[in-house]
Amino acid sequence: MKVLLVNPNTSQAVTDRIMVTARSVASADTELLGVTATSGAAYIATRAEAVIGARAALELLAEHYSGYDAAVIAAFGDPGLGGARELLPIPVVGLAGAALHTACMLGQRFAIVSFASALGPWYRECVEFHGLEGRLAAVRLLDSAFRDITTVQEEKEDLIVELCCATAKEDGADVAILAGAPLAGLAARVARRVPIPLVDCVAAAVRQAEALAALRPIIRRAPVKPVIDVPAALAKLFRAR
Amino acid sequence: MKVLLVNPNTSQAVTDRIMVTARSVASADTELLGVTATSGAAYIATRAEAVIGARAALELLAEHYSGYDAAVIAAFGDPGLGGARELLPIPVVGLAGAALHTACMLGQRFAIVSFASALGPWYRECVEFHGLEGRLAAVRLLDSAFRDITTVQEEKEDLIVELCCATAKEDGADVAILAGAPLAGLAARVARRVPIPLVDCVAAAVRQAEALAALRPIIRRAPVKPVIDVPAALAKLFRAR
Amino acid sequence: MKVLLVNPNTSQAVTDRIMVTARSVASADTELLGVTATSGAAYIATRAEAVIGARAALELLAEHYSGYDAAVIAAFGDPGLGGARELLPIPVVGLAGAALHTACMLGQRFAIVSFASALGPWYRECVEFHGLEGRLAAVRLLDSAFRDITTVQEEKEDLIVELCCATAKEDGADVAILAGAPLAGLAARVARRVPIPLVDCVAAAVRQAEALAALRPIIRRAPVKPVIDVPAALAKLFRAR
Amino acid sequence: MKVLLVNPNTSQAVTDRIMVTARSVASADTELLGVTATSGAAYIATRAEAVIGARAALELLAEHYSGYDAAVIAAFGDPGLGGARELLPIPVVGLAGAALHTACMLGQRFAIVSFASALGPWYRECVEFHGLEGRLAAVRLLDSAFRDITTVQEEKEDLIVELCCATAKEDGADVAILAGAPLAGLAARVARRVPIPLVDCVAAAVRQAEALAALRPIIRRAPVKPVIDVPAALAKLFRAR
Amino acid sequence: MKVLLVNPNTSQAVTDRIMVTARSVASADTELLGVTATSGAAYIATRAEAVIGARAALELLAEHYSGYDAAVIAAFGDPGLGGARELLPIPVVGLAGAALHTACMLGQRFAIVSFASALGPWYRECVEFHGLEGRLAAVRLLDSAFRDITTVQEEKEDLIVELCCATAKEDGADVAILAGAPLAGLAARVARRVPIPLVDCVAAAVRQAEALAALRPIIRRAPVKPVIDVPAALAKLFRAR
Amino acid sequence: MKVLLVNPNTSQAVTDRIMVTARSVASADTELLGVTATSGAAYIATRAEAVIGARAALELLAEHYSGYDAAVIAAFGDPGLGGARELLPIPVVGLAGAALHTACMLGQRFAIVSFASALGPWYRECVEFHGLEGRLAAVRLLDSAFRDITTVQEEKEDLIVELCCATAKEDGADVAILAGAPLAGLAARVARRVPIPLVDCVAAAVRQAEALAALRPIIRRAPVKPVIDVPAALAKLFRAR
Repeated sequence: MKVLLVNPNTSQAVTDRIMVTARSVASADTELLGVTATSGAAYIATRAEAVIGARAALELLAEHYSGYDAAVIAAFGDPGLGGARELLPIPVVGLAGAALHTACMLGQRFAIVSFASALGPWYRECVEFHGLEGRLAAVRLLDSAFRDITTVQEEKEDLIVELCCATAKEDGADVAILAGAPLAGLAARVARRVPIPLVDCVAAAVRQAEALAALRPIIRRAPVKPVIDVPAALAKLFRAR
Repeated sequence: MKVLLVNPNTSQAVTDRIMVTARSVASADTELLGVTATSGAAYIATRAEAVIGARAALELLAEHYSGYDAAVIAAFGDPGLGGARELLPIPVVGLAGAALHTACMLGQRFAIVSFASALGPWYRECVEFHGLEGRLAAVRLLDSAFRDITTVQEEKEDLIVELCCATAKEDGADVAILAGAPLAGLAARVARRVPIPLVDCVAAAVRQAEALAALRPIIRRAPVKPVIDVPAALAKLFRAR
Repeated sequence: MKVLLVNPNTSQAVTDRIMVTARSVASADTELLGVTATSGAAYIATRAEAVIGARAALELLAEHYSGYDAAVIAAFGDPGLGGARELLPIPVVGLAGAALHTACMLGQRFAIVSFASALGPWYRECVEFHGLEGRLAAVRLLDSAFRDITTVQEEKEDLIVELCCATAKEDGADVAILAGAPLAGLAARVARRVPIPLVDCVAAAVRQAEALAALRPIIRRAPVKPVIDVPAALAKLFRAR
Repeated sequence: MKVLLVNPNTSQAVTDRIMVTARSVASADTELLGVTATSGAAYIATRAEAVIGARAALELLAEHYSGYDAAVIAAFGDPGLGGARELLPIPVVGLAGAALHTACMLGQRFAIVSFASALGPWYRECVEFHGLEGRLAAVRLLDSAFRDITTVQEEKEDLIVELCCATAKEDGADVAILAGAPLAGLAARVARRVPIPLVDCVAAAVRQAEALAALRPIIRRAPVKPVIDVPAALAKLFRAR
Repeated sequence: MKVLLVNPNTSQAVTDRIMVTARSVASADTELLGVTATSGAAYIATRAEAVIGARAALELLAEHYSGYDAAVIAAFGDPGLGGARELLPIPVVGLAGAALHTACMLGQRFAIVSFASALGPWYRECVEFHGLEGRLAAVRLLDSAFRDITTVQEEKEDLIVELCCATAKEDGADVAILAGAPLAGLAARVARRVPIPLVDCVAAAVRQAEALAALRPIIRRAPVKPVIDVPAALAKLFRAR
Repeated sequence: MKVLLVNPNTSQAVTDRIMVTARSVASADTELLGVTATSGAAYIATRAEAVIGARAALELLAEHYSGYDAAVIAAFGDPGLGGARELLPIPVVGLAGAALHTACMLGQRFAIVSFASALGPWYRECVEFHGLEGRLAAVRLLDSAFRDITTVQEEKEDLIVELCCATAKEDGADVAILAGAPLAGLAARVARRVPIPLVDCVAAAVRQAEALAALRPIIRRAPVKPVIDVPAALAKLFRAR
């Protein structure tokens, strides 16, 4: 099986993090490719940046999806997911959708925990997009600044563990999602310090992509129309039948 | 007052339609400018096309908003709206949001009526994005093909009137939205043939843009980050404080 | 354009406040009339008082609506709104409905801020009546007594600003409504001290009444029946076809 | 135990119907009094009529509640219920609230069945007011005219039975409410012809009033304020502590 | 009238408590029988224990229901309720369902108050099962250990009163349910110390069972199939037509 | 990896069907064991049967889970799932939960399609238990009798394909779940005849069990109490720490 991961952020270092976690959790016979956006923000934290990232995600998918069995949009918030599902003949998941649905199979009320309060409005909208607000216990975010997106998980490790413990005790969450590609790999490292199961969103997405591909769903594209003035691979995808 | 209308579709003829209706309903002292996307689809009907359109909307807004009191994203579905609200210091409405909220002040349960069944999933998501699914009576769409997007309202006039009458009688709708920029101006022409009030989405958007601007809200931008490889005006907007 | 404002409270001083704000925000060519209830409470703060106020609102509307293009029920909580919409051939908005829908076009999650904790249950029901509980971030109310309803906005100005700042920071609200006719005009005065946009409910209602009237909706009355032992103008409205 | 039934409609014949059913279902030692509004509509079918009826209900309750253990607002739609709960020191139920909650204990998804399509919007709002829209299977209403409100249940008996059977089969309802005071007593007569349990709204209300009174809840009045220009008994209720 | 109460817990002392309260609130001519499970947990506090309790409840009902007019599953959480309704030809209520619906007729937003934080997830699911999450103000639970389930109400009386007062003041609850059979009778003892009405779940269930039986609903069993290897009385119930 | 499948129905032939599909979709290195209930119904179609099945599921899990990495409750409706999650230290999924969440990653609005109308109420409750009613497009069930549960999928194949096509066209579903263990394997056989992706609930459950196990979540048991008079393995599970 082959799974494509597209990082709609422009940070190669975050893609590297993603791929380490992805490889550690993928099935033995799964082949992975990770690609990084060349336009947009270093990491997406607002709806404005997500607009740019959504387009970047479609461009990356259009260019690379051929030959893959499933794809992952490797940003929490899932920029471009709805459109990608209409365009591609293979299953596509986002980090958020995959993590949310995975969490819902491990517990009854999930918390979303992350490292920056700026992410709040976008993540909350994302839960509503996936129709899971009834199972959300809380969104818990750190509100202090961080030094570097590529090492934020080490810098904030203890504070994030505290948030996880607090949401278990105070919000009634029985499972917590460590949200955001920059936290890839953290869940495995801190799981023993938290009283509820943790979901690593990259790990969840890779395994969900595999699960969807294994079902061999027959996916028919939506009736899209030609678009002009976009990169050739993307334009071709809008023309394909 | 000055209101900017950005059409994230690439059809100039639809922009022309939009502007005729916009001018007919705007306050006497309101100045309007309509601009058209140069990339993307002739008209947006799917989530895939909306991803392209959202980015196009931000580009147009970035290039033209200076000096305006409010802006309209002139496509039903409101591509890019969440991002635009974070980036611009002036109120921004989309055709859908404006029409939905206007309809909610004219009746208790609204119907969305339009000319193509392909629009269904996107319009339904749009109602959920605006949090108004509890007041949606029905989405009623024609499922026959049409010849030309710029004259679809004349071609389908009688069928759309029939849908409006049917939704009033069978779905309990007490107000109906004629959804989609290509239907701009149709409501005024057919209102007398329908037993419930009709909302023209372009007319609603222009008046809502005026209403929001008149309140002189103080809008602070979200803490966005620099983005690379996007048109200069848009890049500048992401850098501005 | 002519807009009628009916204050279902018996306080003329509050009507005076309402009209000052209404005139400051209305379009240049809009003519306004404000009338005050002669039965009921000085200001409505409970559902019991709202029952009296709803009837008073219908009486005032029946007596004065002729010749007007739209009407405003000038109490937050919108007493009598559903009935007024069935009886009158012109658009009718309440302060709450107008403010809620306006807020939803300025932000994604609104807070309601006001001066008396007694208002809580009624305001919360009001949000549910309008179907917008999914977008409510918080209801924040002062719980200390106030001296005089006509000057409560000056007396509590600093405390209300504090509530607005708190709801922005702690509840994730990105827009706040200053709720209740006695607060008319306060938003403009304190907007710069609050990090999120404020909605003045009287200003919103006047502009929404104008917007609805500008759409020239054709409103057909509900099939009401004759009623006995009510004031003549109201009785006549129930008989009209 | 003493239970007061106030009919906010002006039809004495409907009150008589109500009292026959009420007496047939009340506990042996329960004493009942039925009173009829002297202002308003012959029977309430719209929100406009309900505004008048709500005030009439408060007037009747104020005049007669003294010495009673519980009260019933004997119109489906429960006009004035929220206000009555704030004013009176005894439990108050409406026909709708009592019937809806009773139905929810007999089945998982209830249908509302009644004799006039004009009742639809008001009844639907009523379900939402009680927060039970998630358990509503359908509202099924006859749309033909009827001759006389006092004998509508005999006139439409067979058609109403058909609606009940249809909602069981087609809507998945597993319990049906015969809604509206004019249908009092019909459920007992036709129950055997319908495959799901029927709820008589008057019978449910009387028994729920008894149940609430039997719990001897300590009810504290809301902090209402004096009102002017209303009947003396009602004015006194607003002054009482 | 004859009402059967089945305690799906194995604690006879709790059944005794239940019956004292049940007798104090039942109508004069109502005959009561209380029976206790012989398998399962001393008292149910988790979903795991509820699975055992649900089966025990069906066994007890099958063995004893004959000749009764209504039945009560006397555990908050209502284990087995959905199944019991399908199997028995008489109305069946659970402590939770009866208390929740009763509370909804006494106030607009209810709180659930109980003695052990372990009950939280199960009680919350229970509110959702009954479709009343929109009216839930809060679940407030003590988190300290208790000595003995049969005297927990005396041991924790003051702390439970404090929770009731807190939920009235801080959560906007206008009615509170003392949840769990072990608290039977406490409401009557402490009602005067709490500013909002209290609902005793056993008292509510007995009166609701009476109310439902008084309506004489005709209840048809669901089309169940034979089951093997269960006690004879239960097996017979699955075979009956 | 080792995955345990417990069939809470007593039909060994259905277990055989389940295992054929399970083996066809499981990862190469996954070891599977299927066990069948010895008490209860041949197949669960009502809430009453599910009460028996839930207890049977816990008994089977208690007896067999040791040494497994994840478990599947192999009945749509997930009897006993909430309890199993509290008792077992490994992930447990039900056919319904796994299929619903899988469907939500393949489309935006899912339909549930099955072979018997008796399943409707239970399946609908199941969607609500999982908090996904907002994404449910329709429940579509055959209402004709079938000959044999073990061959119902061959007998009704064409009719089920018709339902799938109808729900895609008429209900706006963009993914369909073939619900119920007796339909295991059907999706793969008919996928090409349906315009939207199909989800086989057994295949989804096996892959989701694998995915959850691969995340190596640390699952802590709920604080359950000893239970009496249940099979030894189950009693032991309630005692374990």
